[in-house]
Amino acid sequence: MPNTPVSIANFYSVNHSKHPIKTIGILGGGQLGLMLAQSALSLGIRCVFLEDAPNCPARLLGKVYSTEQFDEFAKVCDTYTLEFENTPLDSAKVLEQTVGLFPPAHALFIAQDRLNEKNLFNKLNIDTVPFLAVNSFEKLQTACDKLGLPLVLKTTRGGYDGKGQFVIRNETDIKTAWDELGKACETAPLIAEGFINFSREVSIIAVRSKQGEIRYYPLVENVHHNGILAKTTAPAPNVDNLTEQAQSNIKKLLEHLNYVGVLTLELFITDKGLIANEIAPRVHNSGHWSIQGAVCSQFENHMRAVAGLPLGDTSIVKPSVMLNVIGQYPNISDVLALDGVHYHGYDKEERNGRKIAHITVMPSDSEKLTETVAKVVGLLPNKLGM
Amino acid sequence: MPNTPVSIANFYSVNHSKHPIKTIGILGGGQLGLMLAQSALSLGIRCVFLEDAPNCPARLLGKVYSTEQFDEFAKVCDTYTLEFENTPLDSAKVLEQTVGLFPPAHALFIAQDRLNEKNLFNKLNIDTVPFLAVNSFEKLQTACDKLGLPLVLKTTRGGYDGKGQFVIRNETDIKTAWDELGKACETAPLIAEGFINFSREVSIIAVRSKQGEIRYYPLVENVHHNGILAKTTAPAPNVDNLTEQAQSNIKKLLEHLNYVGVLTLELFITDKGLIANEIAPRVHNSGHWSIQGAVCSQFENHMRAVAGLPLGDTSIVKPSVMLNVIGQYPNISDVLALDGVHYHGYDKEERNGRKIAHITVMPSDSEKLTETVAKVVGLLPNKLGM
Repeated sequence: MPNTPVSIANFYSVNHSKHPIKTIGILGGGQLGLMLAQSALSLGIRCVFLEDAPNCPARLLGKVYSTEQFDEFAKVCDTYTLEFENTPLDSAKVLEQTVGLFPPAHALFIAQDRLNEKNLFNKLNIDTVPFLAVNSFEKLQTACDKLGLPLVLKTTRGGYDGKGQFVIRNETDIKTAWDELGKACETAPLIAEGFINFSREVSIIAVRSKQGEIRYYPLVENVHHNGILAKTTAPAPNVDNLTEQAQSNIKKLLEHLNYVGVLTLELFITDKGLIANEIAPRVHNSGHWSIQGAVCSQFENHMRAVAGLPLGDTSIVKPSVMLNVIGQYPNISDVLALDGVHYHGYDKEERNGRKIAHITVMPSDSEKLTETVAKVVGLLPNKLGM
Repeated sequence: MPNTPVSIANFYSVNHSKHPIKTIGILGGGQLGLMLAQSALSLGIRCVFLEDAPNCPARLLGKVYSTEQFDEFAKVCDTYTLEFENTPLDSAKVLEQTVGLFPPAHALFIAQDRLNEKNLFNKLNIDTVPFLAVNSFEKLQTACDKLGLPLVLKTTRGGYDGKGQFVIRNETDIKTAWDELGKACETAPLIAEGFINFSREVSIIAVRSKQGEIRYYPLVENVHHNGILAKTTAPAPNVDNLTEQAQSNIKKLLEHLNYVGVLTLELFITDKGLIANEIAPRVHNSGHWSIQGAVCSQFENHMRAVAGLPLGDTSIVKPSVMLNVIGQYPNISDVLALDGVHYHGYDKEERNGRKIAHITVMPSDSEKLTETVAKVVGLLPNKLGM
């Protein structure tokens, strides 16, 4: 195995005036950073990353700076973006006020706190579940009275993939929920969200350029397993009557935030229309299908926006389904033996509940999509609960 | 600019038994190596390169060994392949006899010499132009008598992109051609090729697995400018009656050579059918469209074959056109402003006659293909002679 250093002294060799942005610094170095850098490579843009896990996936495509090296990281790039919404807000603001950060730090401020997020949704007339802030056991009891049971108690910060949540179904759950999550109140209030009956979960991804142009990917349908995204179907079936509302919602957010880059809005389909769940101020797992399935992927479009380049076409090439590989790898030969299957490994070690790869199914003959998806699911060690 | 070293000590961190091949060494480090490594990244395969140009495009994705470091290069990988057919045959044989080289060194031996190549074509009943070996001025005069004028005098080794060729149109050209190319006879004979009238140039790319499975990409049409590929149209129009002959020809070559990986066969369309021009024992510029335009690209399929993985679907996703960027970069913003345009920069300095990027045009609405191609050509500094 080669273990001598590679010099990146000549990493940015092409020096011509037709391409002003040459390096983009990314806050975070996970698989989203890896795929952003992959998409930027062909555009003549190189990436470096701020990330404390030295074995992170993005290391394959550029230098990784630890957070202790922030000052150095903040000097070496033409502009900055992020792939991890729990990036410290202070670091984001420093970059924003010096070299430039896209999306803006304020979008991070909103997305990092479920109360900020839900309050902004309501301010912009975007429908949400009923919710209340909770900062004491008494307030939790009041919330249960006002919103009714069941409800979901959530931390406002730091939760992802279903972590930091507790479903309160009956009176005795109230104390248990408080015992589990109450201590989080020391830093920020909790949020109690009324339960809603939804038929399906969908998301919309859109990208906004520095000039204010907006392009929308089609609504996609998401299925979760154990709180983690398992499957995305692109486009979502039977949502023609919902697309306008979804686009209108995300447009309000993009414009209010003076956003640049890719924004994701997760939504529930209820019998009263769409209910906004949360935003992610970044490329999103429910957009991974777009690498093959859209003319221009969410990753390339984000990097185009951040670099000040024109946006690409968000149209669908062919219907596709994305399946996450969670926890354990399948036998890669068995997966690749299926026609129309695209395997994307993140070079991560196997670990329970961890996203370690994704597989996009987009057969040449779209009639074979469902059948091929079933075959891929059959090859995944955990079957994704399907 | 960051200029401190990146460690690749942890370059190959995922260590699970479901994926036996983890590193592939590539002979050559040009843009073909870059794109091979890009396609391998998602499959969990890392690449290193043998290349004497330290600024080569492939350096962006893996360590580059100079030819002086061959012994080290020959130890660090699970298996080897090539992206440059003028790789020294001795090096190829060393790798083949120790760790493994795909395609086999014998394919390189054939492709490195136009006489070997044409003799093999004839042995396998693959039609060629009439040709004669030339190792003296007298033999050249005899060839001109037997084949008639005009004819093309070519070096048998080392020529590419139209270099090492002389068209003899009349008696006085014979001496001029000999003065220019005759000295090459000191190392290997020249080849005199009869002139043919052909209507179009096409190529077929196929891939063969270690198990002997063969998959064919569709025939594509190629247009050259100043001896360099300028444009590839995939699929080639109006070739339904020629596909069987092209597939049969390349199948004979793949099986005769016990080939593993991607092989390219360049052909002329004449009124008597297809005439074989030459082979490239590697991925080929006329297959770059396949990154977006085929279900599984030539790059991924080559790496799958070399790694012993199953082959991917070679079907077309949508019709596409590939344009080479030669010599000078266009304004990238103007190019990306066109929907359905995919830009692939190689991070190379501008230089007259040099391939520095390619652009694949594959609009969502195929009706707009011709119109978009014309717009892209209009943005290229040299207009590719169109």
